[in-house]
Amino acid sequence: MRLATLTSGGDCPGLNAVIRGIVRTASAEYGSTVIGYEDGWVGLLEDRRVQLYDDENMDKILLRGGTILGTGRLHPDDFRAGIDKVKANLKDAGVDALIPIGGEGTLKGAKWLADNGIPVVGVPKTIDNDVNGTDVTFGFDTAVSVATEAIDRLHTTAESHNRVMIVEVMGRHVGWIALHAGMAGGAHYTVIPEVPFDIADICKSMERRFQMGEKYGIVCVAEGALPKEGTMEMKIGDVDQFGHRTFTGIGQQIGDEIHRRLGHDVRTTVLGHIQRGGTPTAYDRVLATRYGVRAARAAHEGTFGTTVALHGEVVVNIPLEEAVGTLKQVPEHRYHTAQAMFG
Amino acid sequence: MRLATLTSGGDCPGLNAVIRGIVRTASAEYGSTVIGYEDGWVGLLEDRRVQLYDDENMDKILLRGGTILGTGRLHPDDFRAGIDKVKANLKDAGVDALIPIGGEGTLKGAKWLADNGIPVVGVPKTIDNDVNGTDVTFGFDTAVSVATEAIDRLHTTAESHNRVMIVEVMGRHVGWIALHAGMAGGAHYTVIPEVPFDIADICKSMERRFQMGEKYGIVCVAEGALPKEGTMEMKIGDVDQFGHRTFTGIGQQIGDEIHRRLGHDVRTTVLGHIQRGGTPTAYDRVLATRYGVRAARAAHEGTFGTTVALHGEVVVNIPLEEAVGTLKQVPEHRYHTAQAMFG
Amino acid sequence: MRLATLTSGGDCPGLNAVIRGIVRTASAEYGSTVIGYEDGWVGLLEDRRVQLYDDENMDKILLRGGTILGTGRLHPDDFRAGIDKVKANLKDAGVDALIPIGGEGTLKGAKWLADNGIPVVGVPKTIDNDVNGTDVTFGFDTAVSVATEAIDRLHTTAESHNRVMIVEVMGRHVGWIALHAGMAGGAHYTVIPEVPFDIADICKSMERRFQMGEKYGIVCVAEGALPKEGTMEMKIGDVDQFGHRTFTGIGQQIGDEIHRRLGHDVRTTVLGHIQRGGTPTAYDRVLATRYGVRAARAAHEGTFGTTVALHGEVVVNIPLEEAVGTLKQVPEHRYHTAQAMFG
Amino acid sequence: MRLATLTSGGDCPGLNAVIRGIVRTASAEYGSTVIGYEDGWVGLLEDRRVQLYDDENMDKILLRGGTILGTGRLHPDDFRAGIDKVKANLKDAGVDALIPIGGEGTLKGAKWLADNGIPVVGVPKTIDNDVNGTDVTFGFDTAVSVATEAIDRLHTTAESHNRVMIVEVMGRHVGWIALHAGMAGGAHYTVIPEVPFDIADICKSMERRFQMGEKYGIVCVAEGALPKEGTMEMKIGDVDQFGHRTFTGIGQQIGDEIHRRLGHDVRTTVLGHIQRGGTPTAYDRVLATRYGVRAARAAHEGTFGTTVALHGEVVVNIPLEEAVGTLKQVPEHRYHTAQAMFG
Repeated sequence: MRLATLTSGGDCPGLNAVIRGIVRTASAEYGSTVIGYEDGWVGLLEDRRVQLYDDENMDKILLRGGTILGTGRLHPDDFRAGIDKVKANLKDAGVDALIPIGGEGTLKGAKWLADNGIPVVGVPKTIDNDVNGTDVTFGFDTAVSVATEAIDRLHTTAESHNRVMIVEVMGRHVGWIALHAGMAGGAHYTVIPEVPFDIADICKSMERRFQMGEKYGIVCVAEGALPKEGTMEMKIGDVDQFGHRTFTGIGQQIGDEIHRRLGHDVRTTVLGHIQRGGTPTAYDRVLATRYGVRAARAAHEGTFGTTVALHGEVVVNIPLEEAVGTLKQVPEHRYHTAQAMFG
Repeated sequence: MRLATLTSGGDCPGLNAVIRGIVRTASAEYGSTVIGYEDGWVGLLEDRRVQLYDDENMDKILLRGGTILGTGRLHPDDFRAGIDKVKANLKDAGVDALIPIGGEGTLKGAKWLADNGIPVVGVPKTIDNDVNGTDVTFGFDTAVSVATEAIDRLHTTAESHNRVMIVEVMGRHVGWIALHAGMAGGAHYTVIPEVPFDIADICKSMERRFQMGEKYGIVCVAEGALPKEGTMEMKIGDVDQFGHRTFTGIGQQIGDEIHRRLGHDVRTTVLGHIQRGGTPTAYDRVLATRYGVRAARAAHEGTFGTTVALHGEVVVNIPLEEAVGTLKQVPEHRYHTAQAMFG
Repeated sequence: MRLATLTSGGDCPGLNAVIRGIVRTASAEYGSTVIGYEDGWVGLLEDRRVQLYDDENMDKILLRGGTILGTGRLHPDDFRAGIDKVKANLKDAGVDALIPIGGEGTLKGAKWLADNGIPVVGVPKTIDNDVNGTDVTFGFDTAVSVATEAIDRLHTTAESHNRVMIVEVMGRHVGWIALHAGMAGGAHYTVIPEVPFDIADICKSMERRFQMGEKYGIVCVAEGALPKEGTMEMKIGDVDQFGHRTFTGIGQQIGDEIHRRLGHDVRTTVLGHIQRGGTPTAYDRVLATRYGVRAARAAHEGTFGTTVALHGEVVVNIPLEEAVGTLKQVPEHRYHTAQAMFG
Repeated sequence: MRLATLTSGGDCPGLNAVIRGIVRTASAEYGSTVIGYEDGWVGLLEDRRVQLYDDENMDKILLRGGTILGTGRLHPDDFRAGIDKVKANLKDAGVDALIPIGGEGTLKGAKWLADNGIPVVGVPKTIDNDVNGTDVTFGFDTAVSVATEAIDRLHTTAESHNRVMIVEVMGRHVGWIALHAGMAGGAHYTVIPEVPFDIADICKSMERRFQMGEKYGIVCVAEGALPKEGTMEMKIGDVDQFGHRTFTGIGQQIGDEIHRRLGHDVRTTVLGHIQRGGTPTAYDRVLATRYGVRAARAAHEGTFGTTVALHGEVVVNIPLEEAVGTLKQVPEHRYHTAQAMFG
């Protein structure tokens, strides 16, 4: 059998571990070969492919962040317009099954290909943990670890200077990274896109800390956080493809407002891209490897139109439609539990 | 309400996060107080208790390994003989619910207390991940991370010297740490207690690597690994309380035998106690915090005779009997998947 | 004898190790006691002091970032106006020697106190490594480590997306952090305040990489970097106390200009406060401990009007005037060596 | 010009950074080429050489532990017997200067080659920091960091179980790693080869801690530690090439004796090879890069018969004879300072 894989959307620690899992399983268990398309869907459309050998190099990529195949983004319209080209390229390369690795958008594309007769097994990928149908996605643990380590460092500098520290983490549409990093890092308030914030509540929480004799506070803010209607004047941001308004520099805006209201010294740190690069955690390497193995096996078992997913202790295949359409949001009870830990 | 908690058995990264979760939840959500017994069951028997305040100090322990309450071991017979003392001490302290945190043995004790009328909610704890009924236990991720980082370091030194490196990790009865660290670290062979090893297979696997031009190999060995009957002469070890034979220095013995058979330069590293100490990973801090929150809530909801557990994305309470009696072993399909990744 | 210490200026990993070194040496070698003034010079003026005991707690602070004494800033005029108050407070507390820990400004204050008859031994502190007379200051290694780890992570995400990544590190007046982190992280261009940059050179260097088939570039920028006169239009920043113009968001401005000129996808990450917080590296713990020991010994030897300093393998005392007046800049030959490594 | 390099003796984090520094400097500053001999002196004798290109791959090795050239050991007699072969091979390859990277033994070999007319520039390498004439060697900081992190982890597990923890670190002939890791990790006693230990002193120190209410102790032991004559019965070890007796498992022996004398629960951890593998610290990457640059420049300047060395803030060349003959030991005043910090 001949498999093809590609990585699409933002890069994510563990992508190479998935590729390695696919290639090793295909080779060791089935004697199959694997090719990779470069730069996501674009490379598939433009027929830029490379042979992926089950060799020493495949071992070395396990620890490497990013993706050896490169990644890219493609507008859904261009994607759909290219269906004939895709079919021709896959046929030309002798591909029996395609394994695209990507987020909700990529899996939506995968579903569309499956609906159009292409044998597809998807692998969910997102540091944001926002794909439905799976307990967790690889890359998320690494992002949370990096953000948590940053919060750990901010505690002591905040305390030494009697400061409120705002740390803005990734999460444009969902607050999983903020929720987990805030909980693991012992932040004193956490703001996520799912629950519009009231700046007065944040200030009250900080004020209570100072009144109790604490000398500092840490606020963890997801980049996609939004104020409750009418509670705070914001510099308007853009409206993205999902119709969400975003506020560039939400962390800075919250910090400025806290300073205005309470007078405390406030500093903002935007963690940015360090959350998505570099060596994956052990957790992500294991999960990504298992995803790759399952995807390769599913391809050989003919379980097409599915994506791999983690359900408890096992990695399973679920229909692609269960993974697409909406993003997995932080449920209220999880946010409530986190709040119990704050300040 | 008045809760009591204690930590029993081997220490484990995340214990303090559980304690913090219990104390904060009890205080913030219910206005309850919490006391802690020192050094596990022993402290309960000897009535050595401390008040746990929901203060700044409670925040600072989140990152700290070990347990602020100390831990200890007690023979089941002494434990059972002390039931009247336990009841008297709990009554004297005005305790409405007891939350023991520990491994399978501790939960067995918790069940026995529950059967004897004491309101108990257990919290499973083990770096070995060997408790039934929960997807995973806190401390496991930290142990795997430490072991994986060690294996990462061994790769380059092994390669530079054309060596076979044996790394012995924790896991006397089950191979979860070896399985995950071996997979995350890209070991070329992994040996776990659940599957008796044939030294000839390990040697064959190493030999194949050298024949393919690779210059080194890494073998990850759980400390409780056992040879297949009749395949290798072993220095006899002790028989432990579970009736298992153990072989002290199994890593060293495997290394010596590989050297004897293949002639390669072989070195053995025994990771030991660094796997169970120190700052917990972000993953373990989140899981442990959630366990503590759930335990405190369960105590207030009156869900006694249960233990908290992770089921997929949610933390639930399950009857204590589901968690005790046997240890959770690595299932064959997981080992099979891991083997697909090796050398 | 009775010593007093205080920490002044920005916080710095290793401050607590210095305090511990002072307290343990005073206690163990001389049977002396130590007090600490809170929040830097301010606490000395306001006579806010705490007793520092040589106990278990003193051991635990070794790993902790920040400063247990708090820190603060005081305008030199207010400082000088308070000399009588300072003398009175020190006399009242029975202080025989004062050990202020701080940067160039603090040491200048220390010198002024020494000139006014107060027995002073200084300890140089700055993550920026900009104090003259010592090979290196503690805190610098931690800052470089944090920045380097961030650059390590940016490599793979930059490569996966074919991006130019700008990483802005600390260093308002000197480029030591950028120089070392850029060299350790394998940045492809590094910009420091000591050498005004020509944006055309940076672009040329990036362009050469892309022409050679490389897919990305990393530019490490010190926050105090300045363009060569007339080479790039900049949003004007403030003029600081040293008369330097600063450009807020220099990293972003450089990134924007590279994007304008080359068209490449460019992202900027500002590391900010995570560089100065958190657990010190082993290197910084050792250096800071040795500084504390030497300072306590110098106080008992009566070597006043000096500051401790690292000269090669030994920690010595040098006259305070050798440490103040100017900042230690990156010498041209060091920048030249670094450039040899770029691109 | 045409340079050759090789790496000899035990592997060491930073070796690849030196190689990169040599290759980049030779290429960028002088337009010269560089070849590498495989597996140390052996590869030079057997004429196994590879071309080292100044390309993308050269960038990627900066973070990688070990040595891309491989390393090996050769008996001095075989080395000297091969001088004609060495000369012939160097001539055949058109080598104008040879840059061997290694420890005291390697530099001794380098000196002998220089004395026999071969243009040589040495680079000192040892995780043990035992080369004379330089403030520090690369690899040492990484080894100390790994050992310190291990000690950090052992604190909490020791405290939770009221244990004495022995941690045995590398250092067969000198105690630099033990000294620095013990100081950075806050060990309560440290034992180094330079100062024979009295087990009674260690026990007294531990006992004092327990009497003061502390619950645990950490003893950091260099693997080459030796008891004071007549103070403790030891299992005899081998006599090594330097005429030193070594005691295999000195950590374990000390631990057993403490347990015998005090009755406390004692555990021993032998860190082993994880101290010498893996990604170098930022400090080591910078130092190793600067060594490589200086060596390449020295070769072009014709400064033969020298080795590079760090003197304070600058990397210089010193005559090879200053680096060989004896090992750099921990001076008494450094050990005395460290002892002031213990327990």
